[in-house]
Amino acid sequence: MQSTGKFSIGVDLGGTNLRAAAIDGAGKLLDSVTGKTARAAGREAILDEMTEAVSTLRERRGVRDLAGIGIAVPGFIQLKEGVIRNSNNLASLENFPIRDELNRRLGTPVILENDANAAALGEKWIGAGREVDDLVLLTLGTGIGGGIVTGGKVLRGSVGMAGELGHITVVPNGNPCGCGNRGCVEKHASATAITAMARLLGLGDALTSSQVYDLAMAGNEKARTIFVSMGESLGVALAMLVNTFNFPLYLLSGGVIGAWDLFAPAMLEETRRRSFTFRNTETRIEKAELGNEAGLFGAAYLPWSAE
Amino acid sequence: MQSTGKFSIGVDLGGTNLRAAAIDGAGKLLDSVTGKTARAAGREAILDEMTEAVSTLRERRGVRDLAGIGIAVPGFIQLKEGVIRNSNNLASLENFPIRDELNRRLGTPVILENDANAAALGEKWIGAGREVDDLVLLTLGTGIGGGIVTGGKVLRGSVGMAGELGHITVVPNGNPCGCGNRGCVEKHASATAITAMARLLGLGDALTSSQVYDLAMAGNEKARTIFVSMGESLGVALAMLVNTFNFPLYLLSGGVIGAWDLFAPAMLEETRRRSFTFRNTETRIEKAELGNEAGLFGAAYLPWSAE
Repeated sequence: MQSTGKFSIGVDLGGTNLRAAAIDGAGKLLDSVTGKTARAAGREAILDEMTEAVSTLRERRGVRDLAGIGIAVPGFIQLKEGVIRNSNNLASLENFPIRDELNRRLGTPVILENDANAAALGEKWIGAGREVDDLVLLTLGTGIGGGIVTGGKVLRGSVGMAGELGHITVVPNGNPCGCGNRGCVEKHASATAITAMARLLGLGDALTSSQVYDLAMAGNEKARTIFVSMGESLGVALAMLVNTFNFPLYLLSGGVIGAWDLFAPAMLEETRRRSFTFRNTETRIEKAELGNEAGLFGAAYLPWSAE
Repeated sequence: MQSTGKFSIGVDLGGTNLRAAAIDGAGKLLDSVTGKTARAAGREAILDEMTEAVSTLRERRGVRDLAGIGIAVPGFIQLKEGVIRNSNNLASLENFPIRDELNRRLGTPVILENDANAAALGEKWIGAGREVDDLVLLTLGTGIGGGIVTGGKVLRGSVGMAGELGHITVVPNGNPCGCGNRGCVEKHASATAITAMARLLGLGDALTSSQVYDLAMAGNEKARTIFVSMGESLGVALAMLVNTFNFPLYLLSGGVIGAWDLFAPAMLEETRRRSFTFRNTETRIEKAELGNEAGLFGAAYLPWSAE
């Protein structure tokens, strides 16, 4: 596809910044734009910025070779309606026909996708999953997102809400979650959970997960325990995923992955203990490779994936 | 397909009896055979009976219109090797090249599948799932099996072990399971679990789940509590499945389904509470329709599904 000069535009409407890029069919970044609009600026400002970013890239690269536009957004998405049903980070865009409005403003159809699903697709395309057709990605951030790729495509489910893996129950009577459940893995293994555990253990009231990491690396036992606990919770969730999917690859991404050596041993031990399939098949649980770029690349891959 | 007179042969090597049937392409049962060999009779006796059952049907219907042969067996299966890796009910067939041996004896290839996967496929073909392409089936028996159908086909995973949903963790420090995990849903919501709970609550040392049902229906509070607890455990597992797959349909089968009115309210309430997706989408959790026949029909559908 590269030889034809075709490219797609991906947009990742992250929790903090908007990023957009023109990327060719082989996954080569051709051009990019980063937004500055605060999420708090509201719907109109966000939509303006998205429209402008895409328009800028389209003008610079020309429309002739544009294969399509993919947009990654956080939250539960109803794909058929093109609506974000529920989003912790982007309340102003909830229950608004974002896809149709972007179609109208840009004069061309866009493909909407959940950000973690897009990240999983990005990793499959040119990241840690490029050699498999089936993988699961968990994005560990303020929450935990999930994306499932099977047969090289995102598993969307009937309305587009599949892959909400942050809400796998790991402690049935555990911490209450905004989704209505208790003990969701995102309440026990996200960056936010690390901060909460540090507060509960008296390490400090507002430590970032990175500061908890520093304490652990300096030998603080409480801080080390937090990462072990986080690893165990991830292991409960991963064992379930391995038993359910029997896929060859499970990826973890997000800043917390920097603490891999602190939580991964407990995570892998817990998964091994809890999953017959993990113990008896070649199943890899590994770090994702694209970091913050996964959603952007995955968004750009949506037009190719839809073909 | 019916008009061409084509048919397939399905074999369901259940925990107690072998059943085999000739079924046409529209799901009509043309002929069937039921075996009598006890599982304890060992591998040779079981293989002889399987071979004879298929041969009998093939002779009666003729080979000219035989589209293929599907075999449903319990246990973790390595599909590529055609080997049952682990099976509580059929230890004598573990780690034995059952598919290749059947191919040799019958002089034609057979398609091997896990029994719960086959049952899910059967329900999709002509049962409660015939109007959807994506569903999950939980078979509640001595254990709990699982089958996932997506895009009209069984989700197999990389070696064929996908859908081991009986081993979803619902109580992280709960009852130990033979799979190595603790608190698997099959340890808290199967017929065996009902018997175990009855024993623990002092209702009786060897009550069948059916006897516990009778006690509950007669107003025994402990017996009623058992079904509520079972429903709650199923709800934890179902919420996870709904959040993961966002499929339109989740089916339950097995004899325990007769107690639906006793456990379903707690199950549905727990699922509703724990799953944003369940609360916000049209998601059905229902009884399967084919009962014990699902695996047999699913096995017979394997040759059609593989096309």
